[in-house]
Amino acid sequence: MSERLPGYRGLALKMLLEAGADIGDLIRVVKDNVVLEGVLIPRSEYSDDKHIVIKSRSGYNIGVEVTPATKVERVRTELKPLFVPPPPPEQRTGLPKVTILSTGGTIASRVDYRTGAVRPVISASDLYSIVPELSDIAVIDAEILFSIFSEDLTPKNWSAMARAVADHISRGIDGVVVTHGTDTMGYSAAALSFALQKLPVPVVFVGAQRSEDRPSSDAPMNLIGAVYAASSAPFAEVTVAMHETPSDEAIIIHRGTKVRKCHTSRRDAFKTVNSKPLARIVNNKIFILTNNYQPRDLERKIILKPEFDERAALIKFYPGMNPKIIDWYVSEGYRGIVLEGTGLGHVRRECFPAIKGAIDADVIVAMTSQCIWGRVNMNVYSNGRDLLSIGVIPLDDMLAETALVKMMWCLAQSKSIDEAKNLLITNIANEFSDRTVEHFEPPKFSMG
Amino acid sequence: MSERLPGYRGLALKMLLEAGADIGDLIRVVKDNVVLEGVLIPRSEYSDDKHIVIKSRSGYNIGVEVTPATKVERVRTELKPLFVPPPPPEQRTGLPKVTILSTGGTIASRVDYRTGAVRPVISASDLYSIVPELSDIAVIDAEILFSIFSEDLTPKNWSAMARAVADHISRGIDGVVVTHGTDTMGYSAAALSFALQKLPVPVVFVGAQRSEDRPSSDAPMNLIGAVYAASSAPFAEVTVAMHETPSDEAIIIHRGTKVRKCHTSRRDAFKTVNSKPLARIVNNKIFILTNNYQPRDLERKIILKPEFDERAALIKFYPGMNPKIIDWYVSEGYRGIVLEGTGLGHVRRECFPAIKGAIDADVIVAMTSQCIWGRVNMNVYSNGRDLLSIGVIPLDDMLAETALVKMMWCLAQSKSIDEAKNLLITNIANEFSDRTVEHFEPPKFSMG
Repeated sequence: MSERLPGYRGLALKMLLEAGADIGDLIRVVKDNVVLEGVLIPRSEYSDDKHIVIKSRSGYNIGVEVTPATKVERVRTELKPLFVPPPPPEQRTGLPKVTILSTGGTIASRVDYRTGAVRPVISASDLYSIVPELSDIAVIDAEILFSIFSEDLTPKNWSAMARAVADHISRGIDGVVVTHGTDTMGYSAAALSFALQKLPVPVVFVGAQRSEDRPSSDAPMNLIGAVYAASSAPFAEVTVAMHETPSDEAIIIHRGTKVRKCHTSRRDAFKTVNSKPLARIVNNKIFILTNNYQPRDLERKIILKPEFDERAALIKFYPGMNPKIIDWYVSEGYRGIVLEGTGLGHVRRECFPAIKGAIDADVIVAMTSQCIWGRVNMNVYSNGRDLLSIGVIPLDDMLAETALVKMMWCLAQSKSIDEAKNLLITNIANEFSDRTVEHFEPPKFSMG
Repeated sequence: MSERLPGYRGLALKMLLEAGADIGDLIRVVKDNVVLEGVLIPRSEYSDDKHIVIKSRSGYNIGVEVTPATKVERVRTELKPLFVPPPPPEQRTGLPKVTILSTGGTIASRVDYRTGAVRPVISASDLYSIVPELSDIAVIDAEILFSIFSEDLTPKNWSAMARAVADHISRGIDGVVVTHGTDTMGYSAAALSFALQKLPVPVVFVGAQRSEDRPSSDAPMNLIGAVYAASSAPFAEVTVAMHETPSDEAIIIHRGTKVRKCHTSRRDAFKTVNSKPLARIVNNKIFILTNNYQPRDLERKIILKPEFDERAALIKFYPGMNPKIIDWYVSEGYRGIVLEGTGLGHVRRECFPAIKGAIDADVIVAMTSQCIWGRVNMNVYSNGRDLLSIGVIPLDDMLAETALVKMMWCLAQSKSIDEAKNLLITNIANEFSDRTVEHFEPPKFSMG
């Protein structure tokens, strides 16, 4: 490994050294008569010795496998200038106060080509400089909570986020925005929906599918929408603000317990499931889509319940699944299992003894559906009825991801297993949808 | 437990015996001034001793908790008459030949109220009697392969299905219909897509979300559509035929590797993901939606590769997931792991050593996305690039469920791990979609 060229070894390192290339240089790689140009970026400790990774002009990272026949040339130094924000625009008076808490992810970050690291750009003046529109909407206070890829966040981070949000709210602000990597933003939004009760003001999660330094970035518009919702929306709930469609037409505000990332890369990746979104924002006008929400009320006292018990697991069922996986979780001391069953809430009968064993060992076992849409109904078929008899708790139309988060939360809030079970089936943050707000027919109970 | 009243025990049994009620009787239960009437149905070995289950006139099963104050009365015997099919309509000559293989599930079945069992109704004459339209479409041969709830099917059943289909095709027919429970129909369709190569004729899976003895059943129309596709469609691939919308407007034909059940109960629960369906059927006319298919060719020789290695697991990642679950699968002798990661294909860095350990132990580890739509791209973020470096195989836009099935199939087909890996990334049955046909249409089940 080389200190100058971190992550590069073997042939790849040799060629880069011979070309005199440094991280951040524009380089040209010629291989099989194909010419590729891009900025050399660092690799990690796990990297092989065959690939050179460059960031192309379009923003994509390209890994080129080098062979002895490959040619590598250094074109020129192309470091991004160190970011020097212009002076922030003059602050208007009388605007709402919004706190932006940064947790990491693509939004509000820039790649530092020198190190390859993602540098959070989240001081208030940075934000005003990058997205000057924000200064028309709110007076912003910004704080970096952590800089973590969202797949690396754990329930401990949810607790820290909840505490930080409650702390800022207690200082008297009009709303909170949490910038977050999109990968697990749905999980975190569900977590804070349970951890922050009786909110006086909105808490709006926001992410971006393309980073702010790319022309096609959704970051500025999402951020503007999120700050607008935090400062002005009439609801005081935990929500997620993202693009409604691939175009820049509208920002849609999802409820934290009913939203999931349904596309790997599109700007409109987030979808509300089994319910309606709370609101749309078009041209800084907010259109409320439901009457069923907790209204903003600055006098309301927030209740903070930030603990999560990590001894809960999500198991997605599949044909032939080994029942011993359930035994394993029990033997590891897990206290809750959320099954992602098939259809109306089924797993194979071969799993029934293991499930019964878990429940006999005081593990709470709950059922959701891998269908995603619709609701679990375990009274229709005999396998479902038997699972109910064994003591599996059906979670109706709750998302599997939300169910896992809620299981962790219920276990941490309760002194007894019965209390945790009761909490699990109590509607805390609209994680259960009323049938009356649905537009599809209720399931029919077709077999004996 | 009682032989006459299977599944009933304790107070519930006592009350039913006192009322002189038998399974299949219309009974009346009076509790807290509420009167409920319905046909008494049996319960299972796992049942508690507190509930009586009746099927109401609307078809719903209702579990009534009895207390000493509950009144139970027998109203009258209300057995369904034993089903005596009328004589089948006269067979037309010159029609295509279609075999219907039944594996269980809601379609092509009737509830026998005497035993509560689901009775397959699948002899050819039964079918013609129940769905007389079939006699205009094809000459049907019918066979019961098994009668299993689809969540209880295992890869061994996939092998049996593949062998049976190949056997019937070798006798010279124009198409095969496989009736199947909807819960895991997507998995089975994917399995047969890999197991049955160079098909000369179509293989059409079909299920129903509501059983045939209910007025709102989708079974007859789905079955007609499936038989029509099997007998007449120009493509020779493994497909799934189901309602396109909740109304009876059209049957949509999905490709077996690109379809999943996306709603627990709606008739239009099945959706093609990351691709377009193959065809629509409206009024017995077939509209082909793509040019990219294997054409029907009776001269083509089918290649049967029916083996699956069950030592493969699907692990859905979630925040804070315990890396030891990966170690456990390795220690149990598993040979393949499909990760359902977040976003573009990520799991937390805490899992990297366990994943590296699995790969070092010759376990194939592949990556799909729990987003469902879109494609894995592990070159964008450092966590993804490191997973690639460790040796995780990205599976592009393949569904996680299809990926698991394919992993099992590749492991069984290959003599070496490299052969299995190569097979895994080779496009066998359109499980990988070209970017140009990419299609993101998330289900609009509930966003009114």
